[in-house]
Amino acid sequence: MTTHPNESDERTERTDEHDDAESGEPTAADEEGAAAAADDEPEIVDGRTIEHLLTDHERDIAATAKGTDATAAKRPTLDLPRLELGRRDFMKAGAVAGAMGSLAGCTSILADEDGEDDGGAAASGDHTVPPGEHDEYYGFLSGGHTGEIRVVGLPSMRELMRIPVFQAESARGFGHDARTSELLEEAGGYTWGDTHHPRVSQTDNDYDGRWLFVNDKANGRMARVDLKYFETDAITNVPNCQGVHGACMQLPDTQLVFGVGEFRVPMPNDGRDVDDPDEYGSVLTAIDPETMDIEWQVQVDGNMDNGDGGKEGRWFFATGYNSEEGVTEAEMTRSDRDYVKAFDIPAIWDAVENGDYEEISGVPVVDGRKESSLNQGDRPIVRYVATPKSPHGISVTPDGKYAIASGKLDPSCTVIGVEEIAEVDDPQDAILGQPRIGMGPLHTAYDDRGHAYTTCFIDSVVVKWDYEEAVEAEAGSEEPVIERHDVHYNPGHLIAAESYTASPQGDYLISLNKLSKDRFLPVGPIHPENDQLFYIGDDDAGMQLIKDKPSYPEPHDASVVHKDKIEPAKTWDPDDYELDFVEEGDESFERVDENTVEIEMWARRNEFAFPEVELREGDEVTIRISNVETTSDVIHSLAIPEYDINLALAPQDTREVTFTADEPGVFWAYCAYFCSALHLEMRSRILVQPDE
Amino acid sequence: MTTHPNESDERTERTDEHDDAESGEPTAADEEGAAAAADDEPEIVDGRTIEHLLTDHERDIAATAKGTDATAAKRPTLDLPRLELGRRDFMKAGAVAGAMGSLAGCTSILADEDGEDDGGAAASGDHTVPPGEHDEYYGFLSGGHTGEIRVVGLPSMRELMRIPVFQAESARGFGHDARTSELLEEAGGYTWGDTHHPRVSQTDNDYDGRWLFVNDKANGRMARVDLKYFETDAITNVPNCQGVHGACMQLPDTQLVFGVGEFRVPMPNDGRDVDDPDEYGSVLTAIDPETMDIEWQVQVDGNMDNGDGGKEGRWFFATGYNSEEGVTEAEMTRSDRDYVKAFDIPAIWDAVENGDYEEISGVPVVDGRKESSLNQGDRPIVRYVATPKSPHGISVTPDGKYAIASGKLDPSCTVIGVEEIAEVDDPQDAILGQPRIGMGPLHTAYDDRGHAYTTCFIDSVVVKWDYEEAVEAEAGSEEPVIERHDVHYNPGHLIAAESYTASPQGDYLISLNKLSKDRFLPVGPIHPENDQLFYIGDDDAGMQLIKDKPSYPEPHDASVVHKDKIEPAKTWDPDDYELDFVEEGDESFERVDENTVEIEMWARRNEFAFPEVELREGDEVTIRISNVETTSDVIHSLAIPEYDINLALAPQDTREVTFTADEPGVFWAYCAYFCSALHLEMRSRILVQPDE
Repeated sequence: MTTHPNESDERTERTDEHDDAESGEPTAADEEGAAAAADDEPEIVDGRTIEHLLTDHERDIAATAKGTDATAAKRPTLDLPRLELGRRDFMKAGAVAGAMGSLAGCTSILADEDGEDDGGAAASGDHTVPPGEHDEYYGFLSGGHTGEIRVVGLPSMRELMRIPVFQAESARGFGHDARTSELLEEAGGYTWGDTHHPRVSQTDNDYDGRWLFVNDKANGRMARVDLKYFETDAITNVPNCQGVHGACMQLPDTQLVFGVGEFRVPMPNDGRDVDDPDEYGSVLTAIDPETMDIEWQVQVDGNMDNGDGGKEGRWFFATGYNSEEGVTEAEMTRSDRDYVKAFDIPAIWDAVENGDYEEISGVPVVDGRKESSLNQGDRPIVRYVATPKSPHGISVTPDGKYAIASGKLDPSCTVIGVEEIAEVDDPQDAILGQPRIGMGPLHTAYDDRGHAYTTCFIDSVVVKWDYEEAVEAEAGSEEPVIERHDVHYNPGHLIAAESYTASPQGDYLISLNKLSKDRFLPVGPIHPENDQLFYIGDDDAGMQLIKDKPSYPEPHDASVVHKDKIEPAKTWDPDDYELDFVEEGDESFERVDENTVEIEMWARRNEFAFPEVELREGDEVTIRISNVETTSDVIHSLAIPEYDINLALAPQDTREVTFTADEPGVFWAYCAYFCSALHLEMRSRILVQPDE
Repeated sequence: MTTHPNESDERTERTDEHDDAESGEPTAADEEGAAAAADDEPEIVDGRTIEHLLTDHERDIAATAKGTDATAAKRPTLDLPRLELGRRDFMKAGAVAGAMGSLAGCTSILADEDGEDDGGAAASGDHTVPPGEHDEYYGFLSGGHTGEIRVVGLPSMRELMRIPVFQAESARGFGHDARTSELLEEAGGYTWGDTHHPRVSQTDNDYDGRWLFVNDKANGRMARVDLKYFETDAITNVPNCQGVHGACMQLPDTQLVFGVGEFRVPMPNDGRDVDDPDEYGSVLTAIDPETMDIEWQVQVDGNMDNGDGGKEGRWFFATGYNSEEGVTEAEMTRSDRDYVKAFDIPAIWDAVENGDYEEISGVPVVDGRKESSLNQGDRPIVRYVATPKSPHGISVTPDGKYAIASGKLDPSCTVIGVEEIAEVDDPQDAILGQPRIGMGPLHTAYDDRGHAYTTCFIDSVVVKWDYEEAVEAEAGSEEPVIERHDVHYNPGHLIAAESYTASPQGDYLISLNKLSKDRFLPVGPIHPENDQLFYIGDDDAGMQLIKDKPSYPEPHDASVVHKDKIEPAKTWDPDDYELDFVEEGDESFERVDENTVEIEMWARRNEFAFPEVELREGDEVTIRISNVETTSDVIHSLAIPEYDINLALAPQDTREVTFTADEPGVFWAYCAYFCSALHLEMRSRILVQPDE
């Protein structure tokens, strides 16, 4: 039942059966040319379009987009330049075509390309990373109710960095300088958040390494991390919605970021309808990834949960629970069915443009509830697919053919056809398979060989299964199941390397287990979680448990990105921020008026521009400070004790802080980053003369 | 030049030469009995005292302590019960005797005992920890300017837990419930701290696993972590002092915790003497480990830095810089000499009891400056030992014979005799050796075989050397150096397993390197640090680099404790906190008056006691909540979105929070710890009715 990536397998044969492509398979020479040119500037060498691969409906959408400039700007979904095949665009077309299951051999093309990258740690059979060697992948883990993102390396599972997102954090000075503290303040002033689903931006259904997006389940927000600097650079406060649970995107090019609203609340939640749950609502929120502005929301029935975008750009899928619209656990779990919601993104754009929305809290809210008139015609904006009890995770297969939802309170997964969802009259007919997986199936990840891997919370296993076989098999059959591997214990999410792209790597998988029990040295009543790394690259040998990694509560989900797709800056580029850089020699101290002081200064190894700063009690003081170092890793900080300030300054970075000098005395500001042998002597004496 | 632990070596021979013990060596049978009974209740089986091992001076101190009950209570230093040899007390005497270098063979006794524990990871020669197996050691790393403590396992170097100390942190709910938020508020209300030196409490010069103490260099505080719960339970705000740098203790029984004050500031620092650096002072602060109250301070000349307690309980050593008492880097580094200060703890107690102090900010401050009258007689309270330029780290050898200071701006280490410091007329005569180690020597750790390991910041090496040989060799000789091993890059502190006890384990050592440069996947301009693990148990093979561990900025120092010496609780014991536990059935909602609500509730898998809580806008609400689970690792939390609250609740824990319900609306409080398949449905609907 297991298949080898280099062998023709049953899945490929089945793909062939479904094949409706007319022609145009690339030759091996074409593939090599495309791969070699992949890093070059996009260049149109061939006017072929892939329009023949689209359904009639998709062709209509593309035509509409072409015809309306304003719409096209807001609708990068199937924008036409991408429909013309250049050398680079060939890659896009391959992904899109693969997503539709309509270009024979496409999946194996991608697999071959992956083969080169997989070579390193995986091929050697040794999953260690000796001192001084680099990991193969970045793992971006959410930090759950720490409010942060964590960066780990795979396969070492070493934590490389933390990125504070929704909380102030002193080592990186996040929330200590003016820019980041304003960011947190404007996003509601909360001191924490609950990050769940980190997703890295994609171009052509592959990671582009530009941004990472993550939700705040607690306070209904969405944040963006700039992967050039590994720093949070935007937070959007989402109205009409308490908890943004899923954080996902429209593919293939991250045209929109989606916040999947969970808790049903009054809209707006300002004291109205407090006692009337019938009036509560839950919304999907579409956010522009560039501006982080909210474009629109769609109100739906029931609570929503997780989501994932179809590879082809039209559909977005979200699971949900509480179709009963109850307010207690008993009420919420009464029904045997809940819904997967399939959002037709172009149709929603049309509704917004047609004015078919209500503006609530300044946002256009489109009515996507089952009974909405927008769902009654032949082009409903939301299709409701009834699936067994409280489907939890949902993810689209790399080939784009299926959205697979996990049952949570039902032992099955539900395989929904992406192409079919657009074509069937009754959404239930889009259900193509429903294998029995195990107790408490929560989330599903993919390799590059047609396998799905599903966590079962109650069984404490990861189940490997064949999703094409599930389409062939009877509903409720266990036949597609290839292997069950124990995890320790009670897994929530899992993630395979590049599982969310059209071309997963197929080598590593992390199971994010909520309980660790006895797996680590005891550290008191608050246990770490246990993120277990598996090697999944050898179908004959089966899943291999490589590492237990204790994790501070509570990593919730992750994305795993190949190292070649992230290109962080080593030092700051002053052009990337608004503040003026302070060069050595340009330092200044200015008393602007009676009680206002403006200081511009720099830091370099062993000294601050001013060894001494004299203030008067009550002064309003603004300090702008640049790290003039150009050598990477020579970081300084400006710690101002008693005034509760610590500005971290990477090379070429400039930060600003304003404080009131309300405590008289002598305060030795110092550098908290150990920077040289004279680090201890690096300081500035702040004299605050008493007001008498 | 290298020696093997099981061979008679030069060091042992030299110890024999220095041997001045008259008799009383325990037999092998005694040793076995003592080891076997070590965990029993202390029992006096033999009235032998070790008074014959003491110097005349120490005998005087012991007699004084015996004669004055009140003094004895405050002076556990050489309290008499420990001077009588019981089965358990034999261990203490062994340590004390070893510390004085006066009981032949003592060091090898300790080494033999260690041998049993070392067996595991070290003996196998395989330093991996496979999934499901436990580490051998706890490493407690400070988090620098994160304000936290981190717990790692050795040799896996996996981070097992974070312990927030000086900052609020939402995943553990630290600073979110009443008790811990009051703790932070009463300690000054700062949002961050700069933890440098974590030290685990000792009994008999060995870790007792009770507490961990750590300083805040930024805001002058000292915190205590309860190692039963791995939670910070006390923070002391230290007056007359801006930055508490070193955090150390009086040994052998953690009679006092010492905060080594760094920055010279006016005393008190309230606006007086702002312009007059001559009036600034720097203090050593003695804190009672049980009450965390400040007992006394000693003012000294110059800035202080790191410190370590002598094994015998009388002396405490601190390094220092800026003997020039300058206020700029140039002024501070002008002199070629700075001082190691040796504090005579019983003499300081005498001064306090004699009223020889000035009370400043409510604390008795004893004048320990060089010119103080208290330093002029034959029993100075502080002895100033001039050593080359800005000595930085200082640590006492496991046998208690030497305090070794590292030169920082001088390539040498200075070996100071602990017994000698009490006996010589001129403190300079206590300098017994001064080997040339390398450029920028900062800190020194020890194995169980007479070797010192010193980090050299500028050379980026750890230097292994023989400290007895350094006593024999000419000053400035490199002869004692055995090995130099590159580290990557620029190490600050280093720590060997149990190096701060009388019986280091001798197998693992961590070099805490400040720069990582290119050692890990790039993560933007803020780099991780690199904590490198070495196996040092094979003198023939030399130091072996085992692992690079990236660390979030900025682990500063660490203590490494054998796993058998820490016994954390798996669940909370309600007797350990003041709040009443709320059993199922005892939940209550009480409107105490017009706008005051008191709620007592519980949490268990899938539900809170109240699925719904109705409040009125403006209500002052206090919630007390217990986790009624008894199964370890089944953690819940009470997250109250929009109200910025997240209470973590380990099994049997009870927490309380008070907030004002000033935002009308519907707020779904939920459990942020993934606790069961119905975790998502575990919630309480908080209705805040608008005030109209």
